[in-house]
Amino acid sequence: MRILILGIDGYIGWPLALHLRERGHKVTGLDNLIRRYRVQHEGSESLFPIDGILKKQPEFPIDTTGLKYLMELDCDLDAIVHLAEQPSAAWSMKDVTTATKTQYHNVLGTLNLLWLMQEYCPTAHLVKLGTMGEYGTPDCVIPEGEIPDGPMAGLLFPRSAGSFYHLSKVHDTYNIIFACKTWGLRSTDIMQGVVFGHLPGTRLDYDECFGTVINRFCVEAVAGMPLTIYGQGGQTRGYLPLKDSIQCLTLALENPPEDGEYRTFNQFAETYSINELADIVSDAGNAFGLEVKKDHISNPRVEKEEHFYSPVHKKLAELGYDPSWDIKNEIHKLIEAIIPYKKDIRKEIILPKIQWAPSEVKHDFSI
Amino acid sequence: MRILILGIDGYIGWPLALHLRERGHKVTGLDNLIRRYRVQHEGSESLFPIDGILKKQPEFPIDTTGLKYLMELDCDLDAIVHLAEQPSAAWSMKDVTTATKTQYHNVLGTLNLLWLMQEYCPTAHLVKLGTMGEYGTPDCVIPEGEIPDGPMAGLLFPRSAGSFYHLSKVHDTYNIIFACKTWGLRSTDIMQGVVFGHLPGTRLDYDECFGTVINRFCVEAVAGMPLTIYGQGGQTRGYLPLKDSIQCLTLALENPPEDGEYRTFNQFAETYSINELADIVSDAGNAFGLEVKKDHISNPRVEKEEHFYSPVHKKLAELGYDPSWDIKNEIHKLIEAIIPYKKDIRKEIILPKIQWAPSEVKHDFSI
Repeated sequence: MRILILGIDGYIGWPLALHLRERGHKVTGLDNLIRRYRVQHEGSESLFPIDGILKKQPEFPIDTTGLKYLMELDCDLDAIVHLAEQPSAAWSMKDVTTATKTQYHNVLGTLNLLWLMQEYCPTAHLVKLGTMGEYGTPDCVIPEGEIPDGPMAGLLFPRSAGSFYHLSKVHDTYNIIFACKTWGLRSTDIMQGVVFGHLPGTRLDYDECFGTVINRFCVEAVAGMPLTIYGQGGQTRGYLPLKDSIQCLTLALENPPEDGEYRTFNQFAETYSINELADIVSDAGNAFGLEVKKDHISNPRVEKEEHFYSPVHKKLAELGYDPSWDIKNEIHKLIEAIIPYKKDIRKEIILPKIQWAPSEVKHDFSI
Repeated sequence: MRILILGIDGYIGWPLALHLRERGHKVTGLDNLIRRYRVQHEGSESLFPIDGILKKQPEFPIDTTGLKYLMELDCDLDAIVHLAEQPSAAWSMKDVTTATKTQYHNVLGTLNLLWLMQEYCPTAHLVKLGTMGEYGTPDCVIPEGEIPDGPMAGLLFPRSAGSFYHLSKVHDTYNIIFACKTWGLRSTDIMQGVVFGHLPGTRLDYDECFGTVINRFCVEAVAGMPLTIYGQGGQTRGYLPLKDSIQCLTLALENPPEDGEYRTFNQFAETYSINELADIVSDAGNAFGLEVKKDHISNPRVEKEEHFYSPVHKKLAELGYDPSWDIKNEIHKLIEAIIPYKKDIRKEIILPKIQWAPSEVKHDFSI
């Protein structure tokens, strides 16, 4: 297949490109490299050395909101993988500028891409990275995209996103559904759980904005810091290792939907609470003699800290997804990989400084 | 009450400002006047002479996406009425530029406003104009905002918007809910039906972009053109006269929600199909001796032309909304008002040129 990866320089984009090339696909990529800049701007840097496009060939470093190069590329594309979005919930909640930039780049970037696909490659398969966070934590089973039965059957399951970043993904979802329905485009919209772990040449972030929780915990364990649990730690989400994300995206690409079809995949291996993850990281760290401690700190986010959580995730399994069930082993390998970089860890960038809301606001989560 | 109207120069903004001032409220307004420019840019002009802020005093002509003047205004505001959005579905479907401008101005403008309210007037009541078109035309009863019962009770009823304009309103809805839940803002989100008719000093548009269907039919009747019905004409929506819109917005303002409360009003008087409206306009025109004809033209939109439609609209009635049930009389008055301007009608701007989709796309409305 001929595949274009938008955001090819990123945490997922680069290992996906390598994997797809190994499987015989013809891969092209675009990236404006803004992730590298933004992480540095927050005072951080990837803990691991990054491979990515800067060490390979200069592709088109171009923003999706200004993307006008599809016509100049080989437009006989089978698929476009869209990973070129601002990925941090915390960054989107920092101030009006970062919130606006998040929705500007994500929503208008994807909107621009949809128009370009309609014009230049209307039969290509759009694989778009969304997030399980679009659903929030409702008091009912979360289906895989649409409401499965009853009078509302076939309508999109209601979204309850928890940051302006998560909202940008919800807006994308609605825009993509419309483009499929109105223009006959086809798309797989990936509601992805939280990714962790590493693959050769990929970045590893651990700061409050761009570091996801397992990666951050593992870095804290190696640095001799207590694992910083936000609030009570009952917050439960779906998780998957980076290699599973690559496996799932490949399955989506190699099993495309029909023309005009919009489908949703809930992409994660298993759900865990923050407390469960802290226990697993703690045990893994102690096996390395790290004497890991835990600390419940004030939650900077506005979210339920104890809640029901039961999302369906069947479609990827039906396509053959073989999850890495042994999360303990994955976390063990990650800590082992971090230990040689212990001296490079910047402890001062880990603790959260961005608050979701002014402290005087009271929350009852009634909406 | 101290009320700020964003979009005070518009079709609804100006008569609302006059009405609120009559009722003793202290009204301030902002407008960047872009509606006037955009209508002219499409080769059209309001059929009726416009009053509005240009003839009164120069307020702050400022874009909501760049709105930084709340702090310089009297910030002791009781309410902000947000009408400052790009209002045309057809214009949003014209090309990538108008689609992007629509979502840029509407979604990011409202996002910017939410941040400003959080900082400068967190207790003010945001009255935001959405549209009944956010819901689309599902095969089930449309509740007033949230799902009323069952396991999903309290979640937002799924949206199925039919243009990038309607989608911009859906995105606003999600952003506003989040701001209420996270920051404790309060808001009334108005899902408004299609407004028609006129009040003294207000504009009347009849072009394919900015003219709504009843106003356009009435202008066609006076101009001696057939009423141009898009497709089969079974498309059914909620409608209300402009004076009812003013009445409803006033009710929302004078009966504000609690702190942190987000509520939805479905704001319309009654539902009609396009064919029913064409019959009413035809009868009213014939009473003036106009010999009105009807013409079913190819539908430029992608929409169901025969469908179930049953939206709930109880909350405004409970607050005392007294609908103008006699739509025939309202349409009679509108035709009477148009007749003196017959010579100014630009026939060439009425027929639709903007297509929702390339003609080769087939639709089964399965999503």
